[in-house]
Amino acid sequence: RERAEVVAVMDTWETRDGFDVEPPECDLTFVLGGDGTFLSQARVMVDRGVPLLGVNFGKVGFLADFEIEDVKAHWDAIASGTCVQTQRVMLDVDVMPMDTPKWDGKDVEPEYSYTAMNDAVITAGPPFRMIEMDLAIEPDVSQRSALTFGGDGIIVATASGSTAYNLSVGGPIVSPGVDAMVVSAIAPQSIAFRPIVFGADCDVWITMNRANEGTTLVIDGQQSTSIQEGQQVRIQRHPNRLQLFQNPNRTYWNTLSHKMHWAVRPSRT
Amino acid sequence: RERAEVVAVMDTWETRDGFDVEPPECDLTFVLGGDGTFLSQARVMVDRGVPLLGVNFGKVGFLADFEIEDVKAHWDAIASGTCVQTQRVMLDVDVMPMDTPKWDGKDVEPEYSYTAMNDAVITAGPPFRMIEMDLAIEPDVSQRSALTFGGDGIIVATASGSTAYNLSVGGPIVSPGVDAMVVSAIAPQSIAFRPIVFGADCDVWITMNRANEGTTLVIDGQQSTSIQEGQQVRIQRHPNRLQLFQNPNRTYWNTLSHKMHWAVRPSRT
Amino acid sequence: RERAEVVAVMDTWETRDGFDVEPPECDLTFVLGGDGTFLSQARVMVDRGVPLLGVNFGKVGFLADFEIEDVKAHWDAIASGTCVQTQRVMLDVDVMPMDTPKWDGKDVEPEYSYTAMNDAVITAGPPFRMIEMDLAIEPDVSQRSALTFGGDGIIVATASGSTAYNLSVGGPIVSPGVDAMVVSAIAPQSIAFRPIVFGADCDVWITMNRANEGTTLVIDGQQSTSIQEGQQVRIQRHPNRLQLFQNPNRTYWNTLSHKMHWAVRPSRT
Amino acid sequence: RERAEVVAVMDTWETRDGFDVEPPECDLTFVLGGDGTFLSQARVMVDRGVPLLGVNFGKVGFLADFEIEDVKAHWDAIASGTCVQTQRVMLDVDVMPMDTPKWDGKDVEPEYSYTAMNDAVITAGPPFRMIEMDLAIEPDVSQRSALTFGGDGIIVATASGSTAYNLSVGGPIVSPGVDAMVVSAIAPQSIAFRPIVFGADCDVWITMNRANEGTTLVIDGQQSTSIQEGQQVRIQRHPNRLQLFQNPNRTYWNTLSHKMHWAVRPSRT
Repeated sequence: RERAEVVAVMDTWETRDGFDVEPPECDLTFVLGGDGTFLSQARVMVDRGVPLLGVNFGKVGFLADFEIEDVKAHWDAIASGTCVQTQRVMLDVDVMPMDTPKWDGKDVEPEYSYTAMNDAVITAGPPFRMIEMDLAIEPDVSQRSALTFGGDGIIVATASGSTAYNLSVGGPIVSPGVDAMVVSAIAPQSIAFRPIVFGADCDVWITMNRANEGTTLVIDGQQSTSIQEGQQVRIQRHPNRLQLFQNPNRTYWNTLSHKMHWAVRPSRT
Repeated sequence: RERAEVVAVMDTWETRDGFDVEPPECDLTFVLGGDGTFLSQARVMVDRGVPLLGVNFGKVGFLADFEIEDVKAHWDAIASGTCVQTQRVMLDVDVMPMDTPKWDGKDVEPEYSYTAMNDAVITAGPPFRMIEMDLAIEPDVSQRSALTFGGDGIIVATASGSTAYNLSVGGPIVSPGVDAMVVSAIAPQSIAFRPIVFGADCDVWITMNRANEGTTLVIDGQQSTSIQEGQQVRIQRHPNRLQLFQNPNRTYWNTLSHKMHWAVRPSRT
Repeated sequence: RERAEVVAVMDTWETRDGFDVEPPECDLTFVLGGDGTFLSQARVMVDRGVPLLGVNFGKVGFLADFEIEDVKAHWDAIASGTCVQTQRVMLDVDVMPMDTPKWDGKDVEPEYSYTAMNDAVITAGPPFRMIEMDLAIEPDVSQRSALTFGGDGIIVATASGSTAYNLSVGGPIVSPGVDAMVVSAIAPQSIAFRPIVFGADCDVWITMNRANEGTTLVIDGQQSTSIQEGQQVRIQRHPNRLQLFQNPNRTYWNTLSHKMHWAVRPSRT
Repeated sequence: RERAEVVAVMDTWETRDGFDVEPPECDLTFVLGGDGTFLSQARVMVDRGVPLLGVNFGKVGFLADFEIEDVKAHWDAIASGTCVQTQRVMLDVDVMPMDTPKWDGKDVEPEYSYTAMNDAVITAGPPFRMIEMDLAIEPDVSQRSALTFGGDGIIVATASGSTAYNLSVGGPIVSPGVDAMVVSAIAPQSIAFRPIVFGADCDVWITMNRANEGTTLVIDGQQSTSIQEGQQVRIQRHPNRLQLFQNPNRTYWNTLSHKMHWAVRPSRT
């Protein structure tokens, strides 16, 4: 009964973008909407330590993987806290000020900071010329060896985000159980680029060697800020993980098959 | 000797973008610059029926495939017209007015018209949400069957352009000797998209089902115009082909290996 | 009515592999079976100049694209010869004797010769070590420049075959209207390999630099012969094209969508 | 000084395949050879808990990443045990007897068991028809949901092996620091197959729905056994990890760039 009110409050939050009302204390948060709604709420709720349950009112429902009837069917398990939850790595994305020493911003206050559930993307933007970046993974450990890379942009995704934008540029599926991030490229100039999966404890540094006027950092496809030539973006694991209720009627593998059509085979019609 | 003057005149054209001076009559045009310069001159010169010879002052030199020393070495063959030329298919790209009947613009005057040597690209642009298009190849012949397709954009490339942007999104190499175009996708939402090669006589129609404010048609990476939701773009073979001098020291295959690093293998260092 | 008898005769041919009975004269041949049956009949029938119509008794029915009800529905057009036909490029595949000069077998009698409708494939075979080949396209014209390439094998496909094995290794779809072949690689050692489409008039030469005991040339997935280290295989256009009835209810584009699931998008279930 | 003798002993092992001599106790093992030699020794040595140092006498030297001069330069660090080591996940690969219950072999003695450092591969083999498999990842947890998948074969690779065969079929690079396996496919029939990375604690079950006479399980490209229709293969983490000395002059990232040519860009020559 209490939970019914929580649902109502949630709905209110979603429509107010300013989010100036402090959400009430709760044990569980329902997110009513599509995957986009879920992402925006996940970024807000991750630090409250409250598990989320996504009810699909959108199209695909990859994160919001409960249909209304699933909520009804599993209500007792949900309410009693026995419904299975998974934990998802999220990202801290920092845009560093222009004069930050290369690959070394330990004591530098970021200009902007974001939390991401799916991905942080740098995209070329108008006038759509190729941009160029230095990518360094764990510069401290890796002796500052970097990959110089040109193209339309770069995607740093969590395992959760691996089935989103990352997949559309040829990146691999990474099961949410893997403690890793994946870097993939949008239209890389090199024909020898391959996506790379590495530990979620690594810090990733991207330095813009060449940017367009419209070059933009995009968080989960939803938030964005302009990135300048010479600027650095640092990406690392967010201190907390998101807790996510999992529909007992589905598994990760059959969601991949049924919703993403993973490995669908030729058929007669 | 005469040709030395022509070289000088060409240089002048390149620097003036307005291009209000009618170029003098000539039998051969040298283009001094990189591949970008070559593309911009090719679009201007294709209808004059004069062959182009690209001298590489840029980085890669895929189209501009003569180095200065190659010009010297083959000067006699160039001057006498016995140096091998290839012919390249180019594209007419028409942006149709908003009220054009779907896939049927025979009697409609395009709003804008472009010529492309490499490719016509529709790119999502700010705020970088996924766009959606209907793609119809030869709608008259194919009973108006279309592919609905979402992603960051679409590339319609010539064989010449197949080794440019098309290659960076996973498209195939198409030898310039093939009378074909290729359609590839930038970050397609579907994991089952594959590039497709079809005859250069086909007309391609793209209808924007969903566009962003910043959605843009880009020609050869150099010219651009805004595209609105509901608008159609038609792409077909340009009536004339570009004549292109080919460096006798190179072949298409070894340029692919040496410049693009096609099929480069792992090595000790 | 006459044609009903022809159908019966065809069925007989299919079951006898020795094929010692000369098929009767006819204006049209029905092939009853799946795509595999169609391929085997196409190789036999291409030089008789008789069009084929494939009735799908198999799984996918890409070549055999008439269902029984389609034959009934379009019987008049089929019988009167007004049903649309397409023409398909086929390949001659020659295994050269061991002492054939490299890339030069004009006056050499091949050891074995095959006709292929879909593809000629060289596959590593037991004990499954990487094989290595030199690939030369038009060695006469291209100054004998070749690509040295290691992996599990190579596929030389026609446009018809582009949607078969070629597609499964990442090759492009090539519309049957394009006068081209495509070369793609099975598990190439290089991460910078890309499939290449080139004119159907080119001759392709493959020299085995390193082979396994079990290295095999496979034609249309159906016929095969052993290939030795040092041996050359030459592939060129077959002099005749196959005539193929096309189901008026389908187009190439909607067959791609409906049977191959080309560009299928994520869905709710 | 003592270690010089160990080197000599190692050399002896390598040449004797029977391996009937018990290797002497030691603190460190040098492997002199290429990556192939390293793999074969790693499988033998992993359970002795002795770290390996690969000295490259082969071609690429990805695992054997010390050149002779690197050994000299870092001798003191190597001998004193202060040279950095990494730990690599390895695999247990079990071929189950024919009557094993599907996805449930807890109490069943495997017919054959192998240890793999890079990968376990099931390959179609003669007569090279498409094989078909059910792939289940963690069948106990995932409610026995499986992916049915046709093609030339399947690769289950460790992070170490991700840059080997897996990479050649389009799989991602997985940094050795990630506790994961990757499944990729050789020539999948589906155009919607994508490689998948999942936790190294998962058990993978492959059931052969359709096999060829020559269908073979291949371990690290070196050991092999025949696989029958209906047979199951189980793959899980090996209880011990391999300890591997890492060349202090290299990092994983620059080895990728310099040896694999990862992200190499077009160049002038």
